[in-house]
Amino acid sequence: MKPRNAFYAQSGGVTAVINASAAGVIEAARRHKNRIGKVYAGRDGIIGALTEDLIDTSRESASFIARLKTTPGGAFGSCRYKLKGIDENRAHYERLIEVFRAHDIGYFFYNGGNDSADTCLKVSQMSGKMGYPIIAVHVPKTVDNDLPITDTCPGFGSVAKYVATSMMEAVLDVESMAKTSTKVFILEVMGRHAGWITAATGLASQKAGQGPHILLFPEIPWNEEAFLARVEETVRRYGYCAIGASEGLQDKDGKFLSESGLKDAFGHAQLGGVAPMLASLVQSKLKMKQHWAVADYLQRAARHIASRADLEQSYAVGKAAVELAVKGMNSVMPTIVRTSSRPYRWKIGVAKLSDVANVEKKMPRDYITEDGFHITARCRTYLEPLIAGEAFPPFERGLPRYVRLKNAPVRKRTATEFKL
Amino acid sequence: MKPRNAFYAQSGGVTAVINASAAGVIEAARRHKNRIGKVYAGRDGIIGALTEDLIDTSRESASFIARLKTTPGGAFGSCRYKLKGIDENRAHYERLIEVFRAHDIGYFFYNGGNDSADTCLKVSQMSGKMGYPIIAVHVPKTVDNDLPITDTCPGFGSVAKYVATSMMEAVLDVESMAKTSTKVFILEVMGRHAGWITAATGLASQKAGQGPHILLFPEIPWNEEAFLARVEETVRRYGYCAIGASEGLQDKDGKFLSESGLKDAFGHAQLGGVAPMLASLVQSKLKMKQHWAVADYLQRAARHIASRADLEQSYAVGKAAVELAVKGMNSVMPTIVRTSSRPYRWKIGVAKLSDVANVEKKMPRDYITEDGFHITARCRTYLEPLIAGEAFPPFERGLPRYVRLKNAPVRKRTATEFKL
Repeated sequence: MKPRNAFYAQSGGVTAVINASAAGVIEAARRHKNRIGKVYAGRDGIIGALTEDLIDTSRESASFIARLKTTPGGAFGSCRYKLKGIDENRAHYERLIEVFRAHDIGYFFYNGGNDSADTCLKVSQMSGKMGYPIIAVHVPKTVDNDLPITDTCPGFGSVAKYVATSMMEAVLDVESMAKTSTKVFILEVMGRHAGWITAATGLASQKAGQGPHILLFPEIPWNEEAFLARVEETVRRYGYCAIGASEGLQDKDGKFLSESGLKDAFGHAQLGGVAPMLASLVQSKLKMKQHWAVADYLQRAARHIASRADLEQSYAVGKAAVELAVKGMNSVMPTIVRTSSRPYRWKIGVAKLSDVANVEKKMPRDYITEDGFHITARCRTYLEPLIAGEAFPPFERGLPRYVRLKNAPVRKRTATEFKL
Repeated sequence: MKPRNAFYAQSGGVTAVINASAAGVIEAARRHKNRIGKVYAGRDGIIGALTEDLIDTSRESASFIARLKTTPGGAFGSCRYKLKGIDENRAHYERLIEVFRAHDIGYFFYNGGNDSADTCLKVSQMSGKMGYPIIAVHVPKTVDNDLPITDTCPGFGSVAKYVATSMMEAVLDVESMAKTSTKVFILEVMGRHAGWITAATGLASQKAGQGPHILLFPEIPWNEEAFLARVEETVRRYGYCAIGASEGLQDKDGKFLSESGLKDAFGHAQLGGVAPMLASLVQSKLKMKQHWAVADYLQRAARHIASRADLEQSYAVGKAAVELAVKGMNSVMPTIVRTSSRPYRWKIGVAKLSDVANVEKKMPRDYITEDGFHITARCRTYLEPLIAGEAFPPFERGLPRYVRLKNAPVRKRTATEFKL
């Protein structure tokens, strides 16, 4: 069988380690030259396929590809762009086939979260529904940690390590000044519907009384009265109160506290601003001095404090995706399977995309304490291995030495201009 | 001459490396046993002296004191509490003398910024004005980098490294998603009146076109029209725009954009919230998708990404303070003297406290580009050495292993209850 080329693209919010998955895909493909020709990356995700804006990764040296493992963000560009179903928008799939055929693309690797798994699933159906032979494998990635089946999602462990470290540091700061200054500190973190990142801030509390004292999960309906009472009690007992809050905090009717009215391309509300809202509540109701931080992109881009476990898993799923593809497995996603927590042991498994797409894994109730304000020992056992180990990037003149690839375009072969 | 005890206290906002100065003081004092008895730390800064709440640092092992070098925050507690002048509030100084005499304290080391230098100056005048023999030496510390005379302020280099690294990482994130998602990203950083930290975010831009594209300094009056025009132009040229903004951004009349109406104990306005304000402006006037982060305490507590240069200087000023004191020098502050920028060389100098107290060093105009929106090459030459070198803390189970001291109290010897 003649080798065919591969298409790889990054989708949705990028992470500190998504490029490690790219390196996994590209390096593994280079080892399977009998089956895979070149790896073409889509510039700006799937958009690069639709507009025939392909990047020839074979033009990048082995050392540059290796440096992807220490570089955050999306090296080829990512996008928020959701493909409709084949029946709803056949034209898009016909265009994909036109481009893929022109470049002899037989493998489709899509590196993303829930929405992207759905896109990958649809592409995998092109073989059956439209007669274009392609093998589509999803490479999991999402800081939200909300993909089902897999033990964890590449990208999450590094955010978890960042927010736990940052919270631990901020707590030492607040603790030391609480006598005459800030009494309440709030750190807002990502996690639209699932509280995994919020939970990770809880790892900073290693002893009773140590902050963070309160975690506000999207899974637990917001209760102003209970919150204020707990803040007051905590300040009375420990002199200060540190809080980890999810951007997706919502009331019992599911309305986001911070709803800004804006929506992203996937139709999700754009969030942000829970921390200042809580801070002003504390200020006005409890008259306590407060400070707040919103980590926003800093948390998901923080390659400088990436988790080694997460980095290794991110690379491993990229590599495994290629190995599954060359075995002819279509419409699947490599997963992380935990075989032991202490010591942490894991291996690569496989899930069907139809079981993954559009399913959100939230925090199990028994990972959250009964009062709804913290994580349980069970949750710690789950989380701790995911932040284990450091993997500092190289530094140069005081700053991380991150790589920017050449990203040389592949010459277009279709005559069509495609408008998105 | 019989050895006398020393008093050491931390004052004002803490930093990622203020404890390294504490280690410098304590370790140096332990080497001068012929002159200095015990080092008593004030619990919660100068308040510990007034309330006779002293911590016996001799109860801490050498290894715990050494671990202060890798632990952020204020190990003995800090405070925002400004002593009035001797003539205005003689009672406070009489109380200080009562406590110092009871514990045979002959050395006063005060670790802080501008306001604290003023407090230290007043204490140093107690010898002359009130006849209590004491040697007071100020140990410089402030993330704001606004103390005069010294080349830089211990604490600043680490914040600078943190904000430059964070900005560099966030830029890679935004850059990779700008096609279909966020176009404008804003990182709000500290620096009430001086733009040093804002300037440091600019180090992340290493080539024309690379973010951050716009820096908003407190030294440059806010101009909405010029700002929006520059954002629009930047997005048109580069596809996105990254912005580093000072919390202390103010209009031409000196009014803070984010004035919340609250004041801290020093009478300064409590700031915060410039980033969301700018973001909403961008959203409403330019209709561009934006994201924003507020680093707040995360930036000044980020020991995990401390600058090695800063750490070494923080330790050195603590050590030097003791050496100046045992030489009998009163009312002084060790400074950092830069002898060369490339390669970076520095030595310890000495400044008179009367030249330091209450003087704020702002950014020189020639460190800011003519248009007011970025840093000049001259500024880079100044800043780069300050973030050089890494000094990662030890990690344990995925998180930094920070020390918490025993902080054993010294038995009270005065009968007086002192109310603040």
